[in-house]
Amino acid sequence: MTGVGVGGLFDPERVAVVGATDREGSVGRAVLENLDSFDGEVVAVNPSRDSVLGYRCHDSLADVPDIDLAVVVVPPSVAVEVVRAAGESGIENVVVITAGFGEAGSEGAARERDLAAVADEYGLTLVGPNSLGIMSTPASMNATFGPADALPGSMSFMSQSGAFITAALDWAGDQGIGFRHVVSLGNEAVLDETDFVEAWGDDETSVVLGYLEGISDGRAFIDTARDVTDETPVVLVKSGRTEAGAQAASSHTGTIAGSDAAYEAGLDQAGVVRAENVQQLFDYARALDGLPLPDSDSVAVVTNAGGPGVMATDAVGDSTLSMASFTDETLDALADALPENANRYNPVDVIGDAGVERFRTALDTVLGDPNVGAAVVVAAPTAVLDYADLAEVVGEAQDAHGLPVAAVLMGGSRAAEPAARLRESGVPNYFDPARAVDSLDALARQRRIAERDYEPPREFDVDREAAREILEEAADRGETRLGVEAMGLLDAYGIPTPEGGIAETPEDAVSLAHEVEGDVVMKIVSPDILHKSDIGGVKVGVPNEGVYDAYEDLVSRARNYQPDATVLGVQVQELVDTDRGTETILGVNRDPQFGPLVLFGLGGIFVEVMEDTTVRVAPVSEREADGMLSDIHAAPLLRGARGREPADLDALRESIERLSQLATDFPAILELDINPLVATADGVQAVDVRLTIDPDDL
Amino acid sequence: MTGVGVGGLFDPERVAVVGATDREGSVGRAVLENLDSFDGEVVAVNPSRDSVLGYRCHDSLADVPDIDLAVVVVPPSVAVEVVRAAGESGIENVVVITAGFGEAGSEGAARERDLAAVADEYGLTLVGPNSLGIMSTPASMNATFGPADALPGSMSFMSQSGAFITAALDWAGDQGIGFRHVVSLGNEAVLDETDFVEAWGDDETSVVLGYLEGISDGRAFIDTARDVTDETPVVLVKSGRTEAGAQAASSHTGTIAGSDAAYEAGLDQAGVVRAENVQQLFDYARALDGLPLPDSDSVAVVTNAGGPGVMATDAVGDSTLSMASFTDETLDALADALPENANRYNPVDVIGDAGVERFRTALDTVLGDPNVGAAVVVAAPTAVLDYADLAEVVGEAQDAHGLPVAAVLMGGSRAAEPAARLRESGVPNYFDPARAVDSLDALARQRRIAERDYEPPREFDVDREAAREILEEAADRGETRLGVEAMGLLDAYGIPTPEGGIAETPEDAVSLAHEVEGDVVMKIVSPDILHKSDIGGVKVGVPNEGVYDAYEDLVSRARNYQPDATVLGVQVQELVDTDRGTETILGVNRDPQFGPLVLFGLGGIFVEVMEDTTVRVAPVSEREADGMLSDIHAAPLLRGARGREPADLDALRESIERLSQLATDFPAILELDINPLVATADGVQAVDVRLTIDPDDL
Repeated sequence: MTGVGVGGLFDPERVAVVGATDREGSVGRAVLENLDSFDGEVVAVNPSRDSVLGYRCHDSLADVPDIDLAVVVVPPSVAVEVVRAAGESGIENVVVITAGFGEAGSEGAARERDLAAVADEYGLTLVGPNSLGIMSTPASMNATFGPADALPGSMSFMSQSGAFITAALDWAGDQGIGFRHVVSLGNEAVLDETDFVEAWGDDETSVVLGYLEGISDGRAFIDTARDVTDETPVVLVKSGRTEAGAQAASSHTGTIAGSDAAYEAGLDQAGVVRAENVQQLFDYARALDGLPLPDSDSVAVVTNAGGPGVMATDAVGDSTLSMASFTDETLDALADALPENANRYNPVDVIGDAGVERFRTALDTVLGDPNVGAAVVVAAPTAVLDYADLAEVVGEAQDAHGLPVAAVLMGGSRAAEPAARLRESGVPNYFDPARAVDSLDALARQRRIAERDYEPPREFDVDREAAREILEEAADRGETRLGVEAMGLLDAYGIPTPEGGIAETPEDAVSLAHEVEGDVVMKIVSPDILHKSDIGGVKVGVPNEGVYDAYEDLVSRARNYQPDATVLGVQVQELVDTDRGTETILGVNRDPQFGPLVLFGLGGIFVEVMEDTTVRVAPVSEREADGMLSDIHAAPLLRGARGREPADLDALRESIERLSQLATDFPAILELDINPLVATADGVQAVDVRLTIDPDDL
Repeated sequence: MTGVGVGGLFDPERVAVVGATDREGSVGRAVLENLDSFDGEVVAVNPSRDSVLGYRCHDSLADVPDIDLAVVVVPPSVAVEVVRAAGESGIENVVVITAGFGEAGSEGAARERDLAAVADEYGLTLVGPNSLGIMSTPASMNATFGPADALPGSMSFMSQSGAFITAALDWAGDQGIGFRHVVSLGNEAVLDETDFVEAWGDDETSVVLGYLEGISDGRAFIDTARDVTDETPVVLVKSGRTEAGAQAASSHTGTIAGSDAAYEAGLDQAGVVRAENVQQLFDYARALDGLPLPDSDSVAVVTNAGGPGVMATDAVGDSTLSMASFTDETLDALADALPENANRYNPVDVIGDAGVERFRTALDTVLGDPNVGAAVVVAAPTAVLDYADLAEVVGEAQDAHGLPVAAVLMGGSRAAEPAARLRESGVPNYFDPARAVDSLDALARQRRIAERDYEPPREFDVDREAAREILEEAADRGETRLGVEAMGLLDAYGIPTPEGGIAETPEDAVSLAHEVEGDVVMKIVSPDILHKSDIGGVKVGVPNEGVYDAYEDLVSRARNYQPDATVLGVQVQELVDTDRGTETILGVNRDPQFGPLVLFGLGGIFVEVMEDTTVRVAPVSEREADGMLSDIHAAPLLRGARGREPADLDALRESIERLSQLATDFPAILELDINPLVATADGVQAVDVRLTIDPDDL
């Protein structure tokens, strides 16, 4: 992300094509031809031609004043110089279509670094390189070399795959789907997905949709998108979801894919409506573009066909929606309006002999019910039902009630015209009830996104300096892996740890033990001994009178095991009754795109066998931390299921937030695991900790 | 299921329409009009007309000889008599379109029972009542009152929703999808889904597809379908999957929906390829109809577009398929054939400047690789790629290699003609790579179904009489809920239980305790005391010398708690070390459609909080029992994860099979729970049991 916005990329008055040519099959020719219908002026630049396709050719950008956008299609070897010339001429917006940069070996990567440096020097808003180009239908501008044009529309579309734009536009044109702006992001030497989300959040774009294989700066994306998505929906396919897909994406783009768990969390925190595939991408975007948001998650189904009505109901059951319960008034009104053998409960079955008027009455009645937030109309063809009339009725009901309606006028060609009529009202029509419901589900997801109030993470009063000292001391000792000797980090950030401390002499140990109530746990503290239990380096339940001897025994075991091991002392810790509480795991790791991720789950088998964990991108807000506590399957155990003591959820939530603050404050912490963090009704205690640091990041 | 087959329903020579009329908008007229194109002879029956739509009208079926099929569209009040008349006239096949039977209150239900009785008396193969009718394209017969006709094809289609047939045929006609036989099952007074699966498994039907809301006899369906599905794929939408959907289906059809877990298990055991929605139903059926089965689950992706290739790869990751690893020969051949910047690893990217010949070479090469079982071709439109040629190449490659290929020629109208060409080769074409891969996944599922060798459940040598005695004694005592007093049932069926038994005197208890090694567990045995622990009715770890007193104490606690409680004695049981083994739960419950279901899971939180269980319809084969042990998420724990002792899987498997045999032998057992069944490395022990019986079923 540049922070400079996308400038005047989409509303130029004069566009220069550098590398303009009339060579059959060339990219330069294709761009020039596509710009034929441009509202403004097209300027051709090519020093080796006098004219191209009727355009007079200029030798260089320096020769033509007042160019708003330069489209670069020259060979890679001269591309950087052309862009510099553009900068010199005062051109602010550049689209580099030329390929042969970061995607093409180390030479290309060097060239891309040069390009970015030039762009930075002149403050260019630059798309590409290796881009298909950009389009802006308000300016009638198609500055791509693709074979398809975009219909006008209000959605804006970005893609890290140029081929996908080509394919999608070709298909969308047939479906009557239009776009406002389209950008093929290419290698993102300068402008990336975050810049366009920001720009489209501020203009007349109704819905942002996109195909991404990666997000270069996850944190910037979240912060930007969060501000956009409460007003403007953002629907994305992030591919490389699966291990196989991630590998393919990485070999395709040359970038290292972050974990999908990070993307899942990050996109959710950003308020993105994530689509799993192409069909969902366009289904969701169209629904969000054409329909109002529902005012609740409750759906009414109105049908003339029992079976398809059941299918729609199943789809509701699969979604985040629920079947609406009608008020008594609605039920009475339906009873009056429908024949006796109709079903007035949801799904409402107006039965097979229903004409359009019965549909109208039923639909009006249920949409007027305060318990109904959206509706699906499911119709099978009958002799007495005219689909064209039904399309009219559905459109009118949708307008009158201001609630979203999706249609399933099942059938082949008989449904085509009515579907087009529905589309004009913004109502999608599908053959499969499940797709219609899934589209409404996207609206409900967007409603929840728009409604959620983002509160910034709480800032706790912590002892940052103490934490820094601990990390720096470890770094000074040349250590990258820390154990209980780092418990002080947690103390510094207010995450409760058991009473006790690290003793450097047997006498220290005895006095520490006296400060603690009851017997103690003693552990050897040595960065060189990872598996302390294996060498008998842990003693549980040591009474005060045994502490002195235990200290000496632990140290001598360590010396015997590894004579040259650094022994920092012995940890003397209050004995935490892990049987009483619930063992949880709280951890941090670092994602290449999103930075620190906070992970939470119950300990042991829950994490290792059931894989029941949840992550968020740090910094984590209070609401997000709360979400983590209810996200895991085992959440009922925290609330006291199966006779367990309920855990102190406030303390758990706060520990998540404090750890998130620690991870955000210290990029040097690569990984950190509190395992277990024991949660009881009275609070939490971090019994053990391990971390890995990168001293260079301190 | 009747067991009499479907007779000559689909190949009659003379069809009578009883209730023929020319009244505008009537069902009788619609049927007569639809039969216009019938290959055979149509006979109209209506005592109040002389002729209808050019057909001479007969007064009754008795007046016309040699009718092969009677289609009944008379009012419900006379329908049963008309069917009797058909039987009297020697007509064997009847379709009752008339509604007003089981779906219409108690009067209708009585009428439906009469209809079934008449059909039984005359041995009729009867479809309906409340059916849309049937179709047979080989006979050019449309004996329905629906507005759409079926194109000829080789798939046969059944539906419990007539409206869905209407909708689906209308749509399918447009898509070029044809059918062999179509039946609207109606209320299934006689013939049901199982009859048609059986019949279509024996004729030229290529694929059976269907929409069902319920299966009347689950066990019969499984046994029948299992024999069919290894040759003829059966693809079904079973709706009412979700709670909301099940409720809707039940109010629509008036039947009690079984649990979806039972359907999930039953359909899987039957070898059905289950589709979640309408789109999958037709995607799967078309793929199974048009394409050969793959010879492995490994897929190759060939594309000219990186992004869509990644999407296809993600879809493979989501499926039961995997990305093929090419042999060195394949990689070398691809290196020779493709440009340097192409990607020869899977997904193969022939890159954007590829013409059709490069696709041909790549596709031929990967399909020739022994590691490749199927392929997906993903193309984005470019100036140098002709989709018509590509369709040709894909069709040829598919024919040449005998492996399934799915196509994703992305785009709008430019893809329409090529898609039609592909369809002729049986190759489906989709805009969304995910749908193409999902279709191949259905083929892979069918391959596994066809390959699995069904072995009937093992019959263990059990003491059925002893089990019967225990159940009968309980029934004689008027008990329906049994506890540890029923441990003998498990003994009789060879499911290991701890040493011990039930003592009726303190002396008995002492002598039982002496037979057992170590301390014992003692529990009060009383059908009237459900929560034994609450009243101190369980003593764990009683040494031999304490057994006498413990007996008296337990009995007196029971008497104090509930003076009139029946006390059958005290159970004296070997102390099972539950800490050592893994606690599992093994249970039985009875589904209205499928009969006894066997449930397995790990105990405690795994069942109650994580809901990690698996079910099968009994009787359970050895392979099916084995599947249960690996189905649960916690399965690694049984194999010894997290330092646990590995469980004796053979003993667990055998316990499942033995319990399945018990449940199958005794329909009186409504519910049974062995909780816990403790599994160690040396075997299993059923520590506690509870069951509910229905004495009337003994």
